[in-house]
Amino acid sequence: MGDSTDHSIEVRVYLEDTDAGGIAYHASYLRFMERARTEWLRAVGLQQSDTFEQDVSFVVHSMSLRFMRPARLDEELRVSCKVAQARAASIRFQQHVVVQGSDETCCEAEVTVACISLASGKARRIPAEVLARARA
Amino acid sequence: MGDSTDHSIEVRVYLEDTDAGGIAYHASYLRFMERARTEWLRAVGLQQSDTFEQDVSFVVHSMSLRFMRPARLDEELRVSCKVAQARAASIRFQQHVVVQGSDETCCEAEVTVACISLASGKARRIPAEVLARARA
Amino acid sequence: MGDSTDHSIEVRVYLEDTDAGGIAYHASYLRFMERARTEWLRAVGLQQSDTFEQDVSFVVHSMSLRFMRPARLDEELRVSCKVAQARAASIRFQQHVVVQGSDETCCEAEVTVACISLASGKARRIPAEVLARARA
Amino acid sequence: MGDSTDHSIEVRVYLEDTDAGGIAYHASYLRFMERARTEWLRAVGLQQSDTFEQDVSFVVHSMSLRFMRPARLDEELRVSCKVAQARAASIRFQQHVVVQGSDETCCEAEVTVACISLASGKARRIPAEVLARARA
Repeated sequence: MGDSTDHSIEVRVYLEDTDAGGIAYHASYLRFMERARTEWLRAVGLQQSDTFEQDVSFVVHSMSLRFMRPARLDEELRVSCKVAQARAASIRFQQHVVVQGSDETCCEAEVTVACISLASGKARRIPAEVLARARA
Repeated sequence: MGDSTDHSIEVRVYLEDTDAGGIAYHASYLRFMERARTEWLRAVGLQQSDTFEQDVSFVVHSMSLRFMRPARLDEELRVSCKVAQARAASIRFQQHVVVQGSDETCCEAEVTVACISLASGKARRIPAEVLARARA
Repeated sequence: MGDSTDHSIEVRVYLEDTDAGGIAYHASYLRFMERARTEWLRAVGLQQSDTFEQDVSFVVHSMSLRFMRPARLDEELRVSCKVAQARAASIRFQQHVVVQGSDETCCEAEVTVACISLASGKARRIPAEVLARARA
Repeated sequence: MGDSTDHSIEVRVYLEDTDAGGIAYHASYLRFMERARTEWLRAVGLQQSDTFEQDVSFVVHSMSLRFMRPARLDEELRVSCKVAQARAASIRFQQHVVVQGSDETCCEAEVTVACISLASGKARRIPAEVLARARA
């Protein structure tokens, strides 16, 4: 589902993801996009749960989102995650949520994730192996 | 993933599903179990979104749950859904959430789902085809 | 909002709590009921975050729920929490979710919460002060 | 809690809002900020549930967020919502999530909400009364 800088996952829209407006609740896209980043991280060799053991945590530093077309119950979405810039202590991703089998984009986002020490809460260098893969 | 009365899906535990106790938040299992029931319904021929068009909705009437072993970040779970009893206007399911590749059960539940008319909010008969499959 | 064995809070139904059926998503009641138990715990002298420091955690052991009348967007609910039985290492609560200003019950539940050691994950005695208040 | 262009609410951080990192899950802030916008809308005379009846819906069009300091379990937050610009069919809000009793900002955001017709899904004019209040 992608090389080491580009990754995507499939997500089905379930009742839990929708709201009384009949469409996906806007915060649901953040959950979908984080699943994609987590799978990207796993693909380059790091599990979220491992990161806790290594005193490394990735936290969202900032993000900008544009919502274009509501996703609806039962739709299958493709959620992509592409490294736009990898710096020593942060990675900026470009992400898209697209309806499977169409060109319709539900949401596009730019997400900057910072690497911090769990113990101190301070910024720290991204593990070398992850950084190398992010820059591959 | 199952015959028409027994179905299961795989679910990965993401950060969104956990809480500050470091384990899956207890309400997350309800979301997982509903995904399994939704996929069962789809397997027997009905999409949630179709049901809205047909003035049919399935709502949880009652449930009992037992939590046995916490699910943790990154674990892969198998969430099963088995018809225990199918009546004219309700179905009782037995559901299990098990850690993949082990016999450890995180949660077991009995869930009774009622069929209602969306327009009136009142109980109504389950569509014949679904009921036939649930009793197969 | 109650004595030491009986407590209630007010909860507004927001868009985040609803689903495409136009009503509160069934797992939302678990969140509401846990807020009420957390406020009960705070009222008897213990914050959730303190419990983590004291190697004490309260986890849901089992629960049974009955859903009677859907809660709708913008409704104000009263969520109550009453100690039904307090044992050495677990407390059983009776909880109700009622629409404010009416007698209509949305959901009633019986919830058994176990006290565990965070370090070992094993059952442990409830702190004496909490137990005394729960039995008051 | 504010005049017609500036509004704030209090939010407690519950277990449901946190993740295994021990802090508020990043998507939780979107829920908190939407509660504040909903209460602003109510303060200027419109309930979310009314809007559905009037074929009016407010949907998030775009947002940018900066996360500065994690919110933790049990903390009380003040979530504010200020009209930055009110146009015919959209309102841009500035929002802050601040820890009560301190100057620490957890999250700041700019959120543009579009007014659409529920029936057509197309942009439509904001009801005159709401627009007048947003521009007051």
